Amino acid sequence: MITSPHNEKLKLVRRLRDRRAREREGLFVAEGEDLVDAAEAAGARPVALLRAGEDVEADLLAGVSSLGSGTRVLGIYRQRWSNPAAPASGASPRITGRPSGSLAEEAAGSYSVAVYLHGVGDPGNVGTAIRSAHALADGPVVLGPGCADPYSPKAVRASMGSVFARPPARAELAALAGTKLALDPHAGRMLADLEVEPPAVVVAGAEREGLPADVLAAADLRARIPVRSGGPESLNVAMAVTVALYELARRMAGHA
Amino acid sequence: MITSPHNEKLKLVRRLRDRRAREREGLFVAEGEDLVDAAEAAGARPVALLRAGEDVEADLLAGVSSLGSGTRVLGIYRQRWSNPAAPASGASPRITGRPSGSLAEEAAGSYSVAVYLHGVGDPGNVGTAIRSAHALADGPVVLGPGCADPYSPKAVRASMGSVFARPPARAELAALAGTKLALDPHAGRMLADLEVEPPAVVVAGAEREGLPADVLAAADLRARIPVRSGGPESLNVAMAVTVALYELARRMAGHA
Repeated sequence: MITSPHNEKLKLVRRLRDRRAREREGLFVAEGEDLVDAAEAAGARPVALLRAGEDVEADLLAGVSSLGSGTRVLGIYRQRWSNPAAPASGASPRITGRPSGSLAEEAAGSYSVAVYLHGVGDPGNVGTAIRSAHALADGPVVLGPGCADPYSPKAVRASMGSVFARPPARAELAALAGTKLALDPHAGRMLADLEVEPPAVVVAGAEREGLPADVLAAADLRARIPVRSGGPESLNVAMAVTVALYELARRMAGHA
Repeated sequence: MITSPHNEKLKLVRRLRDRRAREREGLFVAEGEDLVDAAEAAGARPVALLRAGEDVEADLLAGVSSLGSGTRVLGIYRQRWSNPAAPASGASPRITGRPSGSLAEEAAGSYSVAVYLHGVGDPGNVGTAIRSAHALADGPVVLGPGCADPYSPKAVRASMGSVFARPPARAELAALAGTKLALDPHAGRMLADLEVEPPAVVVAGAEREGLPADVLAAADLRARIPVRSGGPESLNVAMAVTVALYELARRMAGHA
């Protein structure tokens, strides 16, 4: 039972609030029973598990928690990253991203539909996109420049644990296989009017700025999700991604 | 220029962090230029506007902000509520919800599609649903029992200001006109297979608990959004609502 705030595990939890520390250590924190259960269901073993009143005094756990008092459990986990360019099967299904081995990359292999996010700085949107991709697509969420850390507490919470089952990826858009379909509120064509064959990559940017010109130029298709006149110009990026994944899944399942 | 932390407006901002205070006063706070701009675009005039370095010292504003330092502007606004049971036009398009007049209700009138949320306790989900309804539907988001306050800072932020243009409502499900379509991961039928004529109300509950039996029983139709096997059982509630609104809008626009 940890009874000192100077305990090394508690210090690590505090350090992991910082993105650079998370990247350096290749670790992150998941708080609460739901996320710890999701980790277990996905076969992710904690580096350390801190249960209030069992492994650590409850008030010490509350002190390092981003949720505050009432936190009953918190796990430290190793970050996992998909490699969407790696083959789905073969001699080396798992390749190491860094010499330290702390950021092992796993082959996401071939996919029908993946997601590429550019400049999505809100961790809630990144986490929600990971959740939606887990529910509606077979490929990973690939993070381009300017995206929030998918292993920040907010993103992990927004993913509702899907970050464990569906590790995100980091890659250039050009490295991804398939038709790049950019969601663009200014596109002439509507999502429901496109013919898209798998594999496809849904490409989305931050709501306010949208996708930069070079990313739009690199896309094979552009489409918009129709919104009401008098309404907002666009949907929140996580919602736009979700709608696009739904539309693609619906059509690939044979609904006209 | 406000130079004292004991200023009455600053005290009010601090008080409005509390839901009961918001309900008692019929007011709420919107922080940041985007939300203040959205308020202005929707014709919502602030009860008070606090701009850093102009109306109030920057560090005092940061002290009452839920966003912390860097906050440049914060507005106090009157809560507005839609009355989805009121006629769209007529002699009294605006009725007062309380004798004090602090919670004026506005007629949302007739709608093609509205949303009813039951037990959605996460303010981010409530705000996101309001945003999606603003983009994809013509009716309000109606809040049933157990929902988060749509005027909490998190909900207002998640609505991206749509709470100004599309005031939420509070009502019983039975009071709403139209076909009640419950989103239920256990339903046999899929959303894309239903025939739904307007007006319709998309009914959704909290992800983990789902909709309680009495709400499901009160629905006219149940449908699920198909998710991948091996994926999570369901989408986040705001995503499910967004997909349902998209699907209904798409079909009402004549896409088969």
